[in-house]
Amino acid sequence: MKTVTETIKETIKAADLAISSENFDELMEAYTEDACFVAKPGIIVSGKNEIRQAFVNISEHFNHSLIVTQGEMHVIPAGDVALVIMETNLQVTDASGDVSEKKRRATYVYKNASGRWLCAVDNSYGTALLDE
Amino acid sequence: MKTVTETIKETIKAADLAISSENFDELMEAYTEDACFVAKPGIIVSGKNEIRQAFVNISEHFNHSLIVTQGEMHVIPAGDVALVIMETNLQVTDASGDVSEKKRRATYVYKNASGRWLCAVDNSYGTALLDE
Repeated sequence: MKTVTETIKETIKAADLAISSENFDELMEAYTEDACFVAKPGIIVSGKNEIRQAFVNISEHFNHSLIVTQGEMHVIPAGDVALVIMETNLQVTDASGDVSEKKRRATYVYKNASGRWLCAVDNSYGTALLDE
Repeated sequence: MKTVTETIKETIKAADLAISSENFDELMEAYTEDACFVAKPGIIVSGKNEIRQAFVNISEHFNHSLIVTQGEMHVIPAGDVALVIMETNLQVTDASGDVSEKKRRATYVYKNASGRWLCAVDNSYGTALLDE
């Protein structure tokens, strides 16, 4: 049987693949109904409709070139919730074909709902929110 | 009526006062039964008994001089859970009377249980866990 950490790692990997492949319907399956997403510092959207639209906007902003992968990850489960601290790698390609990469230190809250671990708070900016 | 953010801010302030005054019985009221506490990077304890003992050890380690206060705080609630990103200030006084201060960028998960917001994951190291 998989540990909570293994399950959440797989869930995040699948979600990041869904972002990279712009499969937003599948991506929304990874969130709770009342999830919150930090679209950028100061801009928090909530609920699947708003989160989906934010990902559509982000995808367009990066000319459909965004590829998201995971670096090191710490999962700290506590009963039916878990804190995830994760290095997330963002790769984008601009109109001239130049590739650039960014690393962020993300913080997520996952919640076990009816046996499935879903993302309740998605803050890819981590503690960098305090810089704003 | 108080917002979730206001309620959680007051809860954290009361918990930090309880740490500073070594009122560990009161402090334990702020945690869920199956809470996890990052005592230091790599050392995670869980449940009120272990967390209480960790705070007793920390208090002794700092010669009962530890004073914890809050800096800037972001609370991101999503239904019955919330992510907290917070600057926490630690002040300790050594045996010779010298005072030193540290700032950390903490990450906490709070959970609403029967109308009360309780700490489920207490990670004062924030994303610095990725440095280890």
